Order: sequence, then C-alpha cells, then structure tokens
Amino acid sequence: MPQRKLRMGMVGGGRDAFIGAVHRMAAALDGQIDLVAGAFSSNPEKSRASGEDLFLDPSRVYGSYEAMAAAEAALPEDQRIDFVSIVTPNFMHAPVAACFLKAGFHVVCDKPMTLTLEEAKALQTVQAESGKIFALTHNYSGYPMVKEAREIVRRGGLGRILKVVSEYPQGWLSDKIEAEDQKQAAWRTDPQRAGASCCVGDIGTHAEQLGRYITGLKIESLCAEFTSFVDGRLLEDDGNMLVRYKGGAKGVLYASQISAGEENNLSIRIYGTEGSLEWHQEHPNELILKSNSAPAQVLRRGNDYLSEAAKRFTRIPAGHPEAFLEAFANIYSEAVRAIRDAIDGTDAGDYDFPTIEDGVYGMAFIETAVASAASDSKWTSFIQ
Amino acid sequence: MPQRKLRMGMVGGGRDAFIGAVHRMAAALDGQIDLVAGAFSSNPEKSRASGEDLFLDPSRVYGSYEAMAAAEAALPEDQRIDFVSIVTPNFMHAPVAACFLKAGFHVVCDKPMTLTLEEAKALQTVQAESGKIFALTHNYSGYPMVKEAREIVRRGGLGRILKVVSEYPQGWLSDKIEAEDQKQAAWRTDPQRAGASCCVGDIGTHAEQLGRYITGLKIESLCAEFTSFVDGRLLEDDGNMLVRYKGGAKGVLYASQISAGEENNLSIRIYGTEGSLEWHQEHPNELILKSNSAPAQVLRRGNDYLSEAAKRFTRIPAGHPEAFLEAFANIYSEAVRAIRDAIDGTDAGDYDFPTIEDGVYGMAFIETAVASAASDSKWTSFIQ
Amino acid sequence: MPQRKLRMGMVGGGRDAFIGAVHRMAAALDGQIDLVAGAFSSNPEKSRASGEDLFLDPSRVYGSYEAMAAAEAALPEDQRIDFVSIVTPNFMHAPVAACFLKAGFHVVCDKPMTLTLEEAKALQTVQAESGKIFALTHNYSGYPMVKEAREIVRRGGLGRILKVVSEYPQGWLSDKIEAEDQKQAAWRTDPQRAGASCCVGDIGTHAEQLGRYITGLKIESLCAEFTSFVDGRLLEDDGNMLVRYKGGAKGVLYASQISAGEENNLSIRIYGTEGSLEWHQEHPNELILKSNSAPAQVLRRGNDYLSEAAKRFTRIPAGHPEAFLEAFANIYSEAVRAIRDAIDGTDAGDYDFPTIEDGVYGMAFIETAVASAASDSKWTSFIQ
Amino acid sequence: MPQRKLRMGMVGGGRDAFIGAVHRMAAALDGQIDLVAGAFSSNPEKSRASGEDLFLDPSRVYGSYEAMAAAEAALPEDQRIDFVSIVTPNFMHAPVAACFLKAGFHVVCDKPMTLTLEEAKALQTVQAESGKIFALTHNYSGYPMVKEAREIVRRGGLGRILKVVSEYPQGWLSDKIEAEDQKQAAWRTDPQRAGASCCVGDIGTHAEQLGRYITGLKIESLCAEFTSFVDGRLLEDDGNMLVRYKGGAKGVLYASQISAGEENNLSIRIYGTEGSLEWHQEHPNELILKSNSAPAQVLRRGNDYLSEAAKRFTRIPAGHPEAFLEAFANIYSEAVRAIRDAIDGTDAGDYDFPTIEDGVYGMAFIETAVASAASDSKWTSFIQ
Repeated sequence: MPQRKLRMGMVGGGRDAFIGAVHRMAAALDGQIDLVAGAFSSNPEKSRASGEDLFLDPSRVYGSYEAMAAAEAALPEDQRIDFVSIVTPNFMHAPVAACFLKAGFHVVCDKPMTLTLEEAKALQTVQAESGKIFALTHNYSGYPMVKEAREIVRRGGLGRILKVVSEYPQGWLSDKIEAEDQKQAAWRTDPQRAGASCCVGDIGTHAEQLGRYITGLKIESLCAEFTSFVDGRLLEDDGNMLVRYKGGAKGVLYASQISAGEENNLSIRIYGTEGSLEWHQEHPNELILKSNSAPAQVLRRGNDYLSEAAKRFTRIPAGHPEAFLEAFANIYSEAVRAIRDAIDGTDAGDYDFPTIEDGVYGMAFIETAVASAASDSKWTSFIQ
Repeated sequence: MPQRKLRMGMVGGGRDAFIGAVHRMAAALDGQIDLVAGAFSSNPEKSRASGEDLFLDPSRVYGSYEAMAAAEAALPEDQRIDFVSIVTPNFMHAPVAACFLKAGFHVVCDKPMTLTLEEAKALQTVQAESGKIFALTHNYSGYPMVKEAREIVRRGGLGRILKVVSEYPQGWLSDKIEAEDQKQAAWRTDPQRAGASCCVGDIGTHAEQLGRYITGLKIESLCAEFTSFVDGRLLEDDGNMLVRYKGGAKGVLYASQISAGEENNLSIRIYGTEGSLEWHQEHPNELILKSNSAPAQVLRRGNDYLSEAAKRFTRIPAGHPEAFLEAFANIYSEAVRAIRDAIDGTDAGDYDFPTIEDGVYGMAFIETAVASAASDSKWTSFIQ
Repeated sequence: MPQRKLRMGMVGGGRDAFIGAVHRMAAALDGQIDLVAGAFSSNPEKSRASGEDLFLDPSRVYGSYEAMAAAEAALPEDQRIDFVSIVTPNFMHAPVAACFLKAGFHVVCDKPMTLTLEEAKALQTVQAESGKIFALTHNYSGYPMVKEAREIVRRGGLGRILKVVSEYPQGWLSDKIEAEDQKQAAWRTDPQRAGASCCVGDIGTHAEQLGRYITGLKIESLCAEFTSFVDGRLLEDDGNMLVRYKGGAKGVLYASQISAGEENNLSIRIYGTEGSLEWHQEHPNELILKSNSAPAQVLRRGNDYLSEAAKRFTRIPAGHPEAFLEAFANIYSEAVRAIRDAIDGTDAGDYDFPTIEDGVYGMAFIETAVASAASDSKWTSFIQ
Repeated sequence: MPQRKLRMGMVGGGRDAFIGAVHRMAAALDGQIDLVAGAFSSNPEKSRASGEDLFLDPSRVYGSYEAMAAAEAALPEDQRIDFVSIVTPNFMHAPVAACFLKAGFHVVCDKPMTLTLEEAKALQTVQAESGKIFALTHNYSGYPMVKEAREIVRRGGLGRILKVVSEYPQGWLSDKIEAEDQKQAAWRTDPQRAGASCCVGDIGTHAEQLGRYITGLKIESLCAEFTSFVDGRLLEDDGNMLVRYKGGAKGVLYASQISAGEENNLSIRIYGTEGSLEWHQEHPNELILKSNSAPAQVLRRGNDYLSEAAKRFTRIPAGHPEAFLEAFANIYSEAVRAIRDAIDGTDAGDYDFPTIEDGVYGMAFIETAVASAASDSKWTSFIQ
C-alpha cells in the first residue's frame, strides 16, 4: 500500500456549487486524500478563484478538464493526481469521465452517471478498456445502517422479499425557482443539462439504487406517472410508479420535488415473509426491524451487536451520531481502498461502492420510467 | 331533544367477534346510548349467550335480525330501539340495513357498506325512501386531528392540493391464518362474504375515505395492481395504486395485509402549493403541518389553538391522549345528534359522519380498483 | 357473580368539573356499570341540573353527599347503589369516603386520597372496619404497557434496579389563571382545598406511584426543592427532588406546572443492572426496552408477545391505539371485579388497582416532600 | 489572512485512542487544517507508529510533548505548527497546554480542562500571559441547533428562564470494564488521571456547559448526590443534582454512566415564562420549541428561517443531516478563524468557541459538585 495520501483532482464544484463541497469534505474526512488539482468551472477565472479558496497551487488549477487531464498525465508519477472526482452537472459526466479514464486516471463520479443510457453504455466500454476504478457516488448506500439492512436481507432475516416501498419527497422545487436564477434548479430542470428526467433522474435513482442495494432485486417492468406541477417546467417534478420485480416482489416508488415542507425525506421499507425493516435518511443512525411475532427492534449505529458490514463503515461510538457526510465519505473510503490496491496491482474483490454497472442500470431505470410515463400501456418492460 | 338515552339494538357482534365490542364501547362512552336489544349471531344459541354477557333482557335477544326488526317494531314507542348498529361481515350489511330501514329504524352500519356497488345503490334507494338516518362507521375520519386537517385544507392552509399519499400497511395476513380457523381472516378472504376485494375493501377504503374526507378530492381514474402473496388466497392481500384526482391532483394509495410487523399503520400525507400535512393513525393526537418556509408545526389534540371542528370532538385535555375508541365514538355521537334531531323532526344540517353517499362512493372505489387490477389499460375511469 | 351491571353513585363532578366526566366515561366504557345516583355539587341546584344532563332519575340526584348516603342506604338492596365514585376536590375525599364506607358502600376515590397524612390514616381505619372495597384512581398505572413494565421488572428483566427517573412537566399554571376564576386552578392552588402541596400533590404523586407500581421500590429519604414561580401563589408550582430508595437505588423525580408548552408529559425511565425501560404517557401504547448488548425493543400494546399482565387490560388489537380513558377504565374494571366478588362474598386476591394503602403512602410522600422542601438538611427520612 | 491551510500538531491520540481520531476528522473536514506533527503517545514507539498511520513526516513525530514543543518552536516560521491539539487523558491537559502556550503556540484542548480548579486557574494565568488563542472542545455547543437555541433565548423567545433540565445518561460503564483493560474506562475511573470525578467530570460538565451556553445562567449553589454503583469503583458513575441559578432559575441536572441501554443521550430542556425548547443530542438536527398557546415547532438545521447564528455553522442543505463530527468541526473552524486573525494581528471579537474561562468554570463546577456530594448540607455554594 502506498504510504501516502492519495492525490485527488476535481472537475466541477467551483464557487456556488453545492455538491462539489460535499465531495471535498467527504474526501477530506479520513485523512486519506489530498485535493491537489482541479478544473472547478468551465469559466477559467472562476476555476482559478475556486482553486485559491482551496489553497491549491495555482499551476494545478485548470481552465478546462481537457487541459487538466493532459497536464496531470504529463506530471511525474509521484506528483500527478491518482484519481479525479467529477462533480459537474449531469451532461458533463460522460465526456469528463471518458477523458480521464483514457488519460489513465481512476474516477469518482457523481450520479446519475450520464445523460442517456446510450452514453452510459459507451462509458462502460471506455472504463472496461481502461482497467481503471470507477466509483459512482450513490451516497445513501454508504450509510452504515443501510449496509446493516443489506446484511439482514442477505442472511435471510426477512425471509423472501415481497414488497419494497421507496419514497423520496422533497419540496424545494415547489416554486419556479429556476426562473430566479437558482443555479441548482436551473440545470436540473433543463433537459439539455439534466437529461430526460428531472425528479426521477435526480432523486428517484437514489431511491431505486437504495432498494436494489439492500435487496438485490432487479426490475422486470414498471408503471410510471410523471407530472410537471409547476407551470412551464419542461421536466417532471413528481414521479410515482408501481414496480414489478423479477421473481414476483412488488414495489411502490415515488420521488417528488414539489412536496412542500419536505426536506430530503428519503425512506425505504422492505417487507418479507418473515419480517420487515425500515430506514429513514433523515434519521440515519437507526434501522427499524419488525416482525409479526416480536417487538420491533431499533438497531443503532455503533453498537457491538451489528454486523461487520455496518461496523467497518462506522467512525465514532454509538450515540455520537454520524450523518450525510460520513456516509458520503464511506463511498470515498472504499474507492480509496480499491485505488490503493489498483496502484499496488491487487484487487481485494470485496469493495463496497457503486460501480459503472450501477450507473448503467440507473440510466436504464430512468429511461424505462420516462418511457412508461409517456405510454398508455400499464407495464413497460425494463429497458436493457 | 328527548330527555333520555337513545336505545340501541345490535346485529352481529356476538362472542368471538371483534368489531361488535368496539361498537359497543364506542356507543357507551358518552352516556348517550343504552344497548337494549340484539341479534348477535345467526346462531340463536350464540346470540342468547352474547345477550347474557351483556346483561340484556333475554326477551330482547333475538335469533335472527328479521325477528328482531319485527319484534322491536311491534314494541311500544317508548320501549323499542331508536336505531340499530350493524356489525356483521360485509355480505350481511345490505339485507340487514334494508330490513331495519324499512321497519322504520335509523341505522349505524360498519363498512364497506355492501358487497357490491349495485347493492349499495339499491340500499341508497331504500334509505332515501325511508327518510331514516344512516351513518357509516369510517371511524378514522372521527379523529379530532383528522377533522383539524380537513379544516386546514378547507381554509386554504395548504393552498391548492397537488398530491395525496395514503398508506395502510398491516401484517396480520402474512400467513394463511384463514386456514387455521381465524374467524376474522376467514370471512375477509372469502369472496362470498367479503366481496370482490379483501385488502382494498377492508382497509384501502379507509385510506381512500380519509383522503376524500380531508381534501374533498374525487377520483377521476386510477391504476391498480393487486397481489395475492399467500398461496391459495382467492382475494388480494396487497393493493397498490396510482390515482388521478379530478382537477389535476395526483395520488399514491396502497393497502397491504402482508406487510409483516405492521399493525394498523394508516397514514396520510397531503401536499399543496403552500404546505403539507401528515397524520399517522398510530399517533393520532398529533397532526404535522409543514411548509418550505417555516418550521414544521406539531398540532396536538386538546389545545385552544385548534379549530372548533376539532375541539367539539375532544373529550379530555391536551396531553391526556385519546385514541381509537374515542374516534369511533365520535361517529356515534354525531349519529346520536342526528337521530335525536330526527326524532324531534329537526335537521341541523351540519352532522359530521359518513353517510350512505360515502358508502356508495366507497363501493364504486372498490369496484374501480378491482377492474383496474384486472385490466391491461393504464388508467381505469372511476365507475359511477 | 351478579348477572347485572353494577350501580354507581357519584359525588362531585357537576357541570364545569373536569375529572367527573372522565370517571363517568371510564366507568361506562365496558358496559359493566350504570350511573344511577349522584350528589354532583354542594350547590343543590347545580347538582340537579347535572343529574338532568346525565338522564338520571331526579329522585336520586341529591343536594348533599350525606343525604345521598342516607337515602341510598335506605333503598331496597336491588335498587341502591353498589358503590360510590368520589370526584370532588381533595379536601372532600376523606369525609365523603368515610361517610359512604360507614353507610356500607364500596368506594372508588380520586387522588390524592386526603388532605393530610393524618386524615389518610384515619380513613384507613374506617375502611378496615367497614370491610368495603376502596380503589384509588392512580390511573397511570392502569395503562397496559405500564403493567408490562411491572411484569418485566418482576421477572428480573432489568436485573437489580439502580435508578428511577420520573418526570411530570405540565405548563398549564404558567400564568396565574387561578386569579381568572379558572376553577381547576383555583382549588389546586388553595391550601384549604388542595392540602400542603399543589404540584407534588396533584401530579408528583402520580409520578411517585408510577415508579413504585413498576419497581416496588419504597423511599428511604428524599431531598426536595419547591418553588412558587408565579407571584403570589401560596403553594409550589414546581417540585424537584433527589430520592434514595430502600435497598440502595437512587431516583430523580420532578413535577412541574410551569413548564410552558408541556401538556401532560409524564414519563418514567427505570435502569437496572441488566437493562432499562422507558415509558411516556403521551405515547402510552409503547414501552421501550433497552440494554447495552442488544437493539432497543419497542413493545406495543395488543401484541401476542406481551405478558398476561398487559393483555388482560387490553380491549382492541395492536395498532388501534388505546389511551387515557381506557387506562382509567382499567382501574374501574378491576374495582368492579373486586366489588362483584365482595357482593358474592369471595376475594380473588389478585386485584390490580391502587388501594387505601397506596393512598396512605401517597400522603406520606407528599408530607415528606413538603417537609424536605422546608428543611436545610440534605436528606429527610420518609415520614411513616 | 494567511493564504494557506493552518498547520496542526497533536499531543495524544495514538493508536487505540478514541478522541484523537475525532479531533483529526473534525480538523480535516473543512480543508483549513493540515496535521503535520505529533507526539501521539508517551510511548515513543507507539507515537512513531501512529505518525506512520497518518502519513506524517517521521521527523515531525515526537516521543514526548516537550520534545515536540521545543523542536517545532525551532523550525522556520513557515514550517512549524500554528497550533497544537491536546487530546490526552485529563491529567496531561494542563502541563501540555502550558508547555505549548509558553512555546508560543495556540492551543485547542479537550475537556475537562485540567485535573483541578487550582490547575485551571494557573493555566489561565499562563494563557493570559501568552496572548495565544485557547479553545476548549465542548463540542456539543458546536451544533447549529444549539446555537439556534441560544439565539432564541437571547432574543427573549422564551421570556425569562425559569428552569433548566439537563440529562446525560450513558450505559457503557454498567459493568466494571476498567478491570478488563478497556483503556477509555481505565483512565476515566482513575482519580490520578481523571481527577476527583468520573461521571460528572466526563459528561456532567458537557451538560452544564450546554445549559450555560444556551441560557447564560451561572450557578449560585447546588445539591449533588454521587453514587458508585459498580463495586470497587473509586469515582462516581452516576451523579444527580438540584441546581439554583443566580437570579432565581432552578435546575435539575444529572449524568450517568450506568444507565444500561443509553448510548450518549444528552438532552436539554429549557423553560421560560413564554415558552420552552428542547434539544436531544442523538437527534441533533432538530430543535423543538413549545409554548402554551401555539403548536410546537420543530426547527430543523439548514433552513432559511433559522438565525445567522445557526446558519453560519451549517455545511449542507436541510434534510441532509449533519452530526457529531460536524459539530466538533465547528469548534475547530472558529478556532481556526481566531488563530488566522491572531496571525494577522487582528481580533474579530465574535468568536464562538469555548474559552479558557469556560474551562475554569467547568472545573469549579466539578469541584462544587464533588464538595456537595460529600456534604450533609443541602446547598453548597458555587466555588469560585
């Protein structure tokens, strides 16, 4: 293992951005990563100013991602970045990721992975050819209690899974704030930059990935309704769907950005023949386990009674709550482990982070939901 | 107003029954009703024994509802029952109700009102001709905080309603307990006695009625999926649906009886352009009100700041919780008020209990959901 | 067992009273008791009007409790009341109870039992001589989940009890509402009618009784501080104390009526060597059980996994919440069982309701707390 | 402002330590601090290995804090540390802090500040003479919603404060784990290393500081009881006290380490004449605000409706929970701001972190509680 911190570059995440700062904090948390380079904005001046805010060497703050990839690749091996973190709006994910993979860098990329399924598959090919690590930051599966949930399902604690209810209401797009120059809203509601879906692409994919992460269930077909509640909005701000999973389980999944008063209220309930569990993102240190024949159990992060699956993603003792950034950092810590191993030429084979396959699946999910929403048929088969 | 308690008769609710005892406690709570007669079972011996348990005059405990209606009608006016409470399995509601209405008695009836929509409409005609009071015990709309919710929506507190999410998971039918002679399960899973639906008929109707009570929204069309998860069960034990309301609001509504570990977890969340509210039946003294711009508010039963709509259905001070039986009693207390007025020949016009029209609507809802579940079309128009 | 309802008389509880209506609803709930007589107010006209509200035979509505006791005792055995329910302000409990006991009636009495410990002991003598049933309505110990808590402690589920934390904050006396003719506040803050304590007497006794009911622990000594936060109030509106229990356990107990925003937030947490439990009166259907080595358990009323101790005080299924009135009714239902047995000349010996001994203990607790609050010594021994 | 990250050294926090890693994560989170040096253990080999784990330059990993202070002070100004973070057991805080202050370094120090009040006062003198920044990591006052609570109290939102209830139950010392070589337990239960108090010193001080931070109330006198529930433990593992604040407010404060099943359940409730608030450390993103006349409000971190006092300590949007490490990092971020200003020779005067005065006060609180626990007098005046 390299006896040093890994060197990270970043594309996107300049001043005013939201998710870039989250990635930086998550990457910094464990003392395993140094941010050393970046192309923080397509506006070179803004990129430069952002680099200054971050105390970076100005020579490694770039005006474009292409310039960055080229320049970094040209640096001596003991100076150049080990990996790049991509935190741009959706439409830039694919070109940036392809560029850096081809330049020989590992990649951590925000979700959804690309603008289209086609683009996702193309990127998958690039990544396979590169042999580089690719981690997708579906951060909600980074929470320890989500990992405990997966472990419980895997060991049969719920019996056969019958039903999955995934909910992701937010309220921040209740008003047409994209018309008021709110940057986050502007690109997410713009088909050119967000893709064919706003709400399902932005947060519905998290709900889907969370359920799949815990249960392993794949979708057979679904029946979706999309609504744009806000006048003049081109993409949906609310998406509800019925889901049929392969093997017979059923699902209800919805995402909404016009649910006034909701902050980021992702929750999931999973029902099996022997019991059920529920987890609420806004109270992430708890996992509730129920059955018909015994008292509900409230499992809490940090306790000895949890599985190794949860314990190894826990930093501080029970009762000292961890939250969103720590979960996000768990994606980074696993990516770091994989990248360190890759540098050493090894592969532990047990990394727990979302991969490019998850990214392709997520894009297929979005495209299926979009197709179903436009269809008069009840069930739309999952698009491969 | 008659300066006396009202005299109640009961059909159904003998030993082993569940809901009969609930009705009796709800009816007794306020000291306005005396139970004086009953046909508690189609088994005359069981009816007799039940009457004895209840300290009734044996001469007024009957072996059949027909005998009861005839005998009570023949009693002097100052002795005979004022109204009958019908607490049988679904398939008996219509014949019993019609019999008593025709015999000149007011009726309180459990839900769903009848076995079929056709039967419901026929009963509606009988009731109209009788001029008698008919109250349907959709008890969840009896909770004070549900009434507060309706008041908030009515006064525009949420703005225009955009979305309704109604959930009603239970777990008690996870196993095939109808094969083990569990009486409640046996009739609810039997099409002859329960009708065309088990889960949606039994509890989905409550979820629908609750949303309609609070918002006034009527369904334009819906898209339902029914599943019988337990092998050999003839009716669905899980029903999920997407809903389109008249006027453009959307809904997600599900009911389940195979959600292991869930007790009676009815909840509703209503989202409007200005805010949202949520209410959870298992914590009925609280109503949560949210908006994007202010702290969430937790309104609690019994406080001065509530509306008259809630206050007049409250018996004890804030912090001294009321619950299921008290809500149920609120249906009775309003029916009592209407019956007293009817005896006096007056009509206040402001009674707050579910009526025969609600019963007809509920049966139409069940039939629409059943039709949709069997259809390949995405949307099934609401059956009138 | 008498094949009839028991006949109840009531003293106190006229129009405007709070607790009288609670007792009547609790008594009516199970269909085991008929209210047939009353002296509802020391004002005969108000008593008469109250009786009319309750549809009573005017001949059994009395202008004084003495007249009632005499007249009822003179009625034929098959007409006269079986027991009296005493719901007056504190200062009348002892004379009324003594009068009815001496007249041969069983008694259900509100708490605190008397005005002074001396009075309590005298009443105890009267009761012993009468041989009649005496039940004290410490209603919080009537909750099923409190009974479950006791059962868990009894079977050693928490190991040896180390610590009891009992809290009872209310906010309704934050302002000097006794000066605004609020009847409930007026007598509770008046030493002549409430006794030597307002807050601890009114609600602190509930907290003490609740802990003793669950754990069986008796107080060795305590250290109390009383405060009258509202200017001019003669009795304390806030009382905090440290407690030493016999055998070495420690306690923190407080009661408050000036805790703005609190409704009736009684809670208790009990810590043992092996685990702990907590119960919150405002969410009474849940009992939380914790240990250092296993997930917290949330036990919920109505489930099969509970003990018989809880089950036999449960009326409706899990998830259909029960609350304050039902708990209150559990005191009545046990008193009814004891009175029925007494009428039959039997004694099952397993009645679960607070007795006259609990009443004496409660008065000793109040007097000890009052003495401690006035003392400079750290610890005041429990007054016997 | 220096256009670079600050350079941090650390004393303590080697392999097996708990709080050292917490400090490192908190310090790293915001990208403002580089850990560059350390004396991680009094065992030089262990210190060296810890430095290796942290990828430090071996030349800056020291075998003793004295060596570190000397060597760092001798480094060129653009290389040496800007400040030291002290994360040793209590008994080393004072000597290490004095050493580094005298050597010209700013200090961040864990709590309680020293072993004795006398030592605290001596350190205060050293710090005053040094003119260096000293920040004490009472991390719970770093939570944004605690800062909101303070702001609400300051602007009079609760009226005059009447009562403070502070509770801090933990269960981790239920068993005598110090006898099993559990390092955290061993030093905390050892008077030589922890001081005169275990439970109150370790966590009671947090509860006291939290209340004082929010309300500004100072203690006039208190009445404490200490118990060592575990046989052979020399210091108390449970401490309960009644508190009289200057100005007339009253308090109940308790801390416990033998409350089985409790993790880190610090909570505080503050009652004023106009309303009350409560905050629970295990659910730190919420602050509950109550009054007698309006619905309870649940204020949640990250919302626009909060004060600047809370907003400036918030990193991510509402609904994306922050927790313990982020609160801890808020102490560091303010210390960093003060240190940067000190380097520049300025002083903004509005830094929001606990100071050496808080440390002295905390030690006085501990000594007062210890004295009271040993006294037969009811009230022990606060020791200055």
